[in-house]
Amino acid sequence: MSTLHIYNTYSRNMEEFRPLHPSRVGMYVCGPTVYGPPHLGHVRGPVVFDVLRRYLEFSGFAVRHVRNITDVGHLVGDADEGEDKLAKQARLEQIEPMEIAQAYTLSYNEMIRQMNVLPPGIEPRASGHIIEQIEMIQAVMDAGLAYEVNGSVYFDVFAYAKNYDYGKLSGRVLDDLIAGAGNESRELEGQDEKQNPNDFALWKRANPEHIMQWSSPWGKGFPGWHIECSAMARKYLGDVFDIHGGGMDLLFPHHESEIAQSTACTGHNPARYWIHHNMITINGQKMAKSLNNGITVDQLFAGNHPLLEQAYSPMTLRFFILQAHYRSTLDFSNEALSAAEKGLQRLWNAVKVARNLVASESGEYDVQALAKECRVSMDDDLNAPQVIARLFEAARVANLVNDGKMKLTATQITELNALFETWLVQILGIAPEESSDHRALDGVMQMLLDMRVQAKQDKNYALSDSIRDRLTALGFTIKDGKDGSSWSL
Amino acid sequence: MSTLHIYNTYSRNMEEFRPLHPSRVGMYVCGPTVYGPPHLGHVRGPVVFDVLRRYLEFSGFAVRHVRNITDVGHLVGDADEGEDKLAKQARLEQIEPMEIAQAYTLSYNEMIRQMNVLPPGIEPRASGHIIEQIEMIQAVMDAGLAYEVNGSVYFDVFAYAKNYDYGKLSGRVLDDLIAGAGNESRELEGQDEKQNPNDFALWKRANPEHIMQWSSPWGKGFPGWHIECSAMARKYLGDVFDIHGGGMDLLFPHHESEIAQSTACTGHNPARYWIHHNMITINGQKMAKSLNNGITVDQLFAGNHPLLEQAYSPMTLRFFILQAHYRSTLDFSNEALSAAEKGLQRLWNAVKVARNLVASESGEYDVQALAKECRVSMDDDLNAPQVIARLFEAARVANLVNDGKMKLTATQITELNALFETWLVQILGIAPEESSDHRALDGVMQMLLDMRVQAKQDKNYALSDSIRDRLTALGFTIKDGKDGSSWSL
Repeated sequence: MSTLHIYNTYSRNMEEFRPLHPSRVGMYVCGPTVYGPPHLGHVRGPVVFDVLRRYLEFSGFAVRHVRNITDVGHLVGDADEGEDKLAKQARLEQIEPMEIAQAYTLSYNEMIRQMNVLPPGIEPRASGHIIEQIEMIQAVMDAGLAYEVNGSVYFDVFAYAKNYDYGKLSGRVLDDLIAGAGNESRELEGQDEKQNPNDFALWKRANPEHIMQWSSPWGKGFPGWHIECSAMARKYLGDVFDIHGGGMDLLFPHHESEIAQSTACTGHNPARYWIHHNMITINGQKMAKSLNNGITVDQLFAGNHPLLEQAYSPMTLRFFILQAHYRSTLDFSNEALSAAEKGLQRLWNAVKVARNLVASESGEYDVQALAKECRVSMDDDLNAPQVIARLFEAARVANLVNDGKMKLTATQITELNALFETWLVQILGIAPEESSDHRALDGVMQMLLDMRVQAKQDKNYALSDSIRDRLTALGFTIKDGKDGSSWSL
Repeated sequence: MSTLHIYNTYSRNMEEFRPLHPSRVGMYVCGPTVYGPPHLGHVRGPVVFDVLRRYLEFSGFAVRHVRNITDVGHLVGDADEGEDKLAKQARLEQIEPMEIAQAYTLSYNEMIRQMNVLPPGIEPRASGHIIEQIEMIQAVMDAGLAYEVNGSVYFDVFAYAKNYDYGKLSGRVLDDLIAGAGNESRELEGQDEKQNPNDFALWKRANPEHIMQWSSPWGKGFPGWHIECSAMARKYLGDVFDIHGGGMDLLFPHHESEIAQSTACTGHNPARYWIHHNMITINGQKMAKSLNNGITVDQLFAGNHPLLEQAYSPMTLRFFILQAHYRSTLDFSNEALSAAEKGLQRLWNAVKVARNLVASESGEYDVQALAKECRVSMDDDLNAPQVIARLFEAARVANLVNDGKMKLTATQITELNALFETWLVQILGIAPEESSDHRALDGVMQMLLDMRVQAKQDKNYALSDSIRDRLTALGFTIKDGKDGSSWSL
C-alpha cells in the first residue's frame, strides 16, 4: 500500500495517492519534441518522473509508464523553391522529417541512458497514432464541441465552457483569455478561421509545402499538438488513469486542452493526479536565445559552453536536479553544480567506507529510524532533497564509525549499507559513473609508473624491469620521455 | 563514383552499382519482429548491411538507410478468458502489445549498439504506418488486383500473374506453388476465404481477441505482414529506390509479395538491387526449438548457454560474421568463434605495433597497393573476408618492421596506420571493445596484488604498505583472505 502524499495541480491540494487499481499505476508524462538536441530544459522532467516511478515500484506497484515522442510538427519544405519544384523533387532529395526526428530521438534516448533514467514501458510517437487522433477528433465533433473550417478542425472552447470548467487546471479565466489570442505557435495561420481566438486546432489542413501530412475525413492534413497526448494516453492507459505529468510550462494551453479534449469524449478529466515540476533557470535567468544561455546536455557533459567552467558528469547533473524539490525552480550555476559534484563524491566515499566498517557488540545509532525517515520524506510530496540530507547524515555516521568515534552493531552496519543501496542507488537512481574504470586505471597506472621510477632510483632493477615486462604482457605500451613515463593501452 | 559490383538476386547477376541519384543512395532493409529477444539469427543482417552502408558512405554517397520495426503481429489476448471477460478487463490489466514491442525494440537496439552497427536514418514502425498501408491496399484494389472477403482483403496472385512475372525474385513457379498452400503463418485462419491458396492477406479482419486493431474502410482489422515494407519503403524512399536488403529466408513469400504489391500500385519493381545475405547454422544445424540451439545474443556475450564454452564479445561476433562472405552460410561453433577472437586480438596487437614503428629512409613494401587491393575486394560483391585477409597481411608487415626484418618509410608507416583505421575500424566497423578498460584494470590490479605478496615475502614492508595505502587513497578496497587478496573499487 502506498503512503505517498503528492501535490495535485488540478485540486491545488496535497492528496493521498490512491491508484485506481490495487497494484498497478498508469502514468503518462509528456515527452520531447524531437527537432533539436536535448538541452538543460529537457532533463529535469525525465529525472523527476523517473524517481516517482522508482519510488512507486519500490512501494510494490507495477507501473505502466508512457512517455510520448512528438514527431509531428509544423516543419515545412523550403518555401522559396515553390510548390512545383517541391513536387518535382525526388523523394530522396527532399528533407525527410522522420530522418530528423530519428536523429533527435536517438540523442534524447542517449541522454536518458546517460542520466540513468529507466526507459518508459511504452514510447508512442505522435506520427504513429494518426488514426487514433482522427477518431478522437471525430468523437469531439460528435459531441458538438468542434467544428470544421476549410479542412481544419477547431475545438469550440465556448461551447465546452458552458458545461465544463475550462481553465480549472491552469487557473486561467476564459473571460481574461479572450483578450490575449493566439497562444499556440503552430496555429499562427488559422486565426481567421476560428470562431473564437481561444479555440485551438485539433486538425490542420496541410498546405502543399507541409511535408508531413496524412489523409483524414477532412482532407490531407496533420493533427494539432494537444490531441496526440489525449489519444495516446487513452489508448495505452484507458479513459481514466492515475498520473499525468509534465513541466509547469505545459499547464496552458497543452494540459488544459488535453483535459478539455478527453472530457469532451468521455465526460471525465483523464488523470486523477496532475503532477508538474517547476522550471529551470541559468544563473538566475530564463533560457533564451538572446541570452545565449541555451546549454545542451552534451555541452554540460563536455564542459564546452562559454558559461561553463568545467564539465559535469551525468550523475552530478542528476544529483544536482534532485537536490531541489521538484516544485521549486532549479537554478543552474557553476557554483551549484560544482557543490553537487563535491557532495556526491562525499556520499560515494561514505558508501565505500560503510562497506568496510568493523562491527561492535553494541550500537549507538538507530539506522532503521533513519531509513524510515527517508520514506517519510519521500511520502511528503517526493521530498528528494530531504532524502539527500538524510543520506548525508548516514555518511556522517559511516565516517564516525570508521574513525572509531561511534559504534554500530553488525546488523546496523548491514542496515547502513542497505540504506545507501535503496535510497541513493535504487530510488534516487544515482549510479556509479560509467567511466570509473577508466579513472581508476589512470590512477593505478600512474602509481605503477611512480613505483618504477622509485625502483630505478633504489637500483632495484629487478623490480623496475618486472613492472615494465608485466605491463607489456598485459598489452600496455610504456614510453619513457624527458618529463617522465607515459602509458597507453 | 562507385566502382562497386554487387550480386542482384533479382537478375541473378553480378551488376555494377549505379544509384538513381548521383550522390544519394536509398536503402531499405527488413528489420526485426520485436516479440522476442535478439538471437544469433538476428545479428548477421544488421552487420552485413552496416558494412555496405559504411562502404557506400566511404565512397562518397549520402545513404538514407531505412530499417523497419515489425510491431504488428497476430498477438491475441488469452482466448480462455473469453471475449466478454477481455472486454471487461481494465486497460491497465490487459496485455499491452506495445509494452512488449517496446521492451524488445530496446533490447534489439542495445544489441545494435553493442555490435557497433550505425543506427538507421529512419526506423519506421509498422504500427505507426497504418494509414499508409491502408492507402496502398486501396491502390492495389483500385488496380483490380485485390478483393475483399468478410472484412479481409487478399492479393489476387492469379490476376497479377497475367501481366507480371510473379515468382521472378524467388525463382518459384506459380503452377508449382498451387500445390503447397498456406505459406504464411499469420494467415492460417483465412484459407477458406481466399480465391486461390497462394493469394496473401493485405488486411485481416480482427476478431475480438485481437488486441491490436485499427479502423479501415473494411472494418476493424490489422495489416498483413508484407504490406508494411512496401508502404514504408515507398513513403521514405519513393516509388523506386536503389537497394532492398534482407535475409534469404525473406525471398519468399515476403519479398516476392512486396514486389507484387508495389508493382500493382506503381507498375515497377520498387528496388533496383535486391541483396540477400545467407543464413546461419549452429554446429552445422539449423536453429530450431527441438535442437535447443536457439542462442540469444546476450547468452553469447555472457557465455551462458549449454552449447557455449566461453563468452564471446560483440566485436568478436562482428569479426566472425565478416570472416564469411555474406552470400555463404555462416556456421557458429566454439572453435570458429574462438579462432575469430584470437585472430582479432592479433590484428589489434598489430594496430598497436604499427603506431610505434620506426621509419627508415627507404621502404620495402607497397602499402598503398595493399590499401587499393582492399578496395578491389570490397568492390567485388562486398568481399569482407578478403579485406580481412589483407588486414592480416598488413599485420604481418607491421610485425616484420617492428622486428627489424623489413623497412618502411615514414609515409608508408602513416599509410599502414591509415589502412587499419579505414578498413578495420571505419568500413568493417570493428571498434575497440568497450570493456577494455575494465579488463586492463583487472590485469593491473592482479599484478599489484602479486607485487604486494612478493614484497611481504621479501620483508620489504615499506613497499607492501605503500601499495596498500596508495590503492586505498585511489578508492580501492583491498581484502586479504586465506586464498589471497581481492580488490574492489
